[in-house]
Amino acid sequence: MAKTPTFDKRPSKILRVGKGFKLQDVDPGSTPGYDGDKADGHKLLAEMDDKLGGLQEQLFAESRFGGRKRVLLILQAMDTAGKGGIVNHVMGTMDPQGVQLATFKAPTPEEKSYDFLWRIEKEVPAAGMMGVFDRSHYEDVLIHQVHRWAGAEELERRYAAINEFEARQAAAGTRIVKVMLHISRDEQKERLLARLDDPTKRWKYSGTDLQERAFWDDYMDAYQKAFDKTSTEAAPWHVVPGNSKWYARIAVQQLLLEALEGLDLQWPVPDLDVALERDLVLRS
Amino acid sequence: MAKTPTFDKRPSKILRVGKGFKLQDVDPGSTPGYDGDKADGHKLLAEMDDKLGGLQEQLFAESRFGGRKRVLLILQAMDTAGKGGIVNHVMGTMDPQGVQLATFKAPTPEEKSYDFLWRIEKEVPAAGMMGVFDRSHYEDVLIHQVHRWAGAEELERRYAAINEFEARQAAAGTRIVKVMLHISRDEQKERLLARLDDPTKRWKYSGTDLQERAFWDDYMDAYQKAFDKTSTEAAPWHVVPGNSKWYARIAVQQLLLEALEGLDLQWPVPDLDVALERDLVLRS
Repeated sequence: MAKTPTFDKRPSKILRVGKGFKLQDVDPGSTPGYDGDKADGHKLLAEMDDKLGGLQEQLFAESRFGGRKRVLLILQAMDTAGKGGIVNHVMGTMDPQGVQLATFKAPTPEEKSYDFLWRIEKEVPAAGMMGVFDRSHYEDVLIHQVHRWAGAEELERRYAAINEFEARQAAAGTRIVKVMLHISRDEQKERLLARLDDPTKRWKYSGTDLQERAFWDDYMDAYQKAFDKTSTEAAPWHVVPGNSKWYARIAVQQLLLEALEGLDLQWPVPDLDVALERDLVLRS
Repeated sequence: MAKTPTFDKRPSKILRVGKGFKLQDVDPGSTPGYDGDKADGHKLLAEMDDKLGGLQEQLFAESRFGGRKRVLLILQAMDTAGKGGIVNHVMGTMDPQGVQLATFKAPTPEEKSYDFLWRIEKEVPAAGMMGVFDRSHYEDVLIHQVHRWAGAEELERRYAAINEFEARQAAAGTRIVKVMLHISRDEQKERLLARLDDPTKRWKYSGTDLQERAFWDDYMDAYQKAFDKTSTEAAPWHVVPGNSKWYARIAVQQLLLEALEGLDLQWPVPDLDVALERDLVLRS
């Protein structure tokens, strides 16, 4: 049987937002580091599911014996980019007991009455957990910059607060994986039309998607600014081209695999006399 | 291609705890209503995944447009019966955004300072959600009866409180599916030994499992009592034989399918002029 093509360059390197990164240089239709086609991608995705699930179980298991490690995937994107599908797939391969999903919508009046990180802090993953943020505190520097709900000085304060917040999480044992799913403006148009045309998808269509779409270039500027300010050593950004859904999925899967592998996880060795316990079970 | 065998009797009927039900009459190794073998069961499970996921999405979608329906799966079982695997599979087929999992462990001191339903009430599913309880308020009439942590009068109070609580949830739009996964005492012995023998599973082994195992018959009595007292019209119990993991999975899957189908779900029809919106998107 032919071997399924894998990445020839590590997504954590090739998709990373480093010095001098320009969002406009990323082709949303490209598949960096991967030469396979869609069918190959689907095969790779399926083949890696068990590995990802196994590592997540190890992460969870370690925490039952005092481990403090955890992972936090932060997903940001324009509407229709496919965050939902990725969350669905990633979490589908894991034990739900060990996954904490937080979906951040427009803040409630109560949430607005606090500083922007208040509602975020409440949702950070506990030890052993795989946390997933579907949108995040980055909304407070993206949409707020685009619509000028925050001025330059306030935005600076928020970037600094975000970096401190994320560095603290990292120091406490959290591996942070920040991903922007990047689709093109034309691709979004196609996907909005597809939502309108399919009666089983129409309920997902929202007039506000179209309103925000009108600010496309401003959003790209806001993302660039956020990357410049918050792609740190402790919590680097990755831009994942998203026009090909299959590519986005294997890329995020690989980013998580790399993050988990980097934690050097081990199966806990419980302090018990296995022979004695076996005997007790047999006699029971 | 041969058609995959399906259930010849509805699990919601054949597994239901009705008048005169005796737990001791259920063979944990049986596969009621299903004539297929293990391979058939796996095929059926995979074939029904999309259907289950689709219905769950409809449930969620309805709630975005004012729907109040929701589902609550309550799982109870002896240790090693396979609750985790079922939660894993059921939730793996659904959109995590629409699923609320609550795992009830031994209550914390804070939880103990309230009445037993306090921590339960906080975890009931919101409109549109698929709620899953991994253990539940039934611990307070099972383990509490077995170890005599509650007297006869207190247990009666709790049965009545549970029935009122569940009837209220049902009246508010919640379809409640209560499942006891039923394994045999011998099967549990095999599974405990398997945990001890596998270094990747050993961390799940707990000495308290063995302690509770010593009270097996008392637990069966407590389950029987709970069935007698709380298998109501609004929230009937189902006993799912669990020695065959594959059977338990397809049986729970079918119970959920039946529950969701019984809700008569429809895709929402948003109040928008599709032609106009299409035009706006095309011009955008």
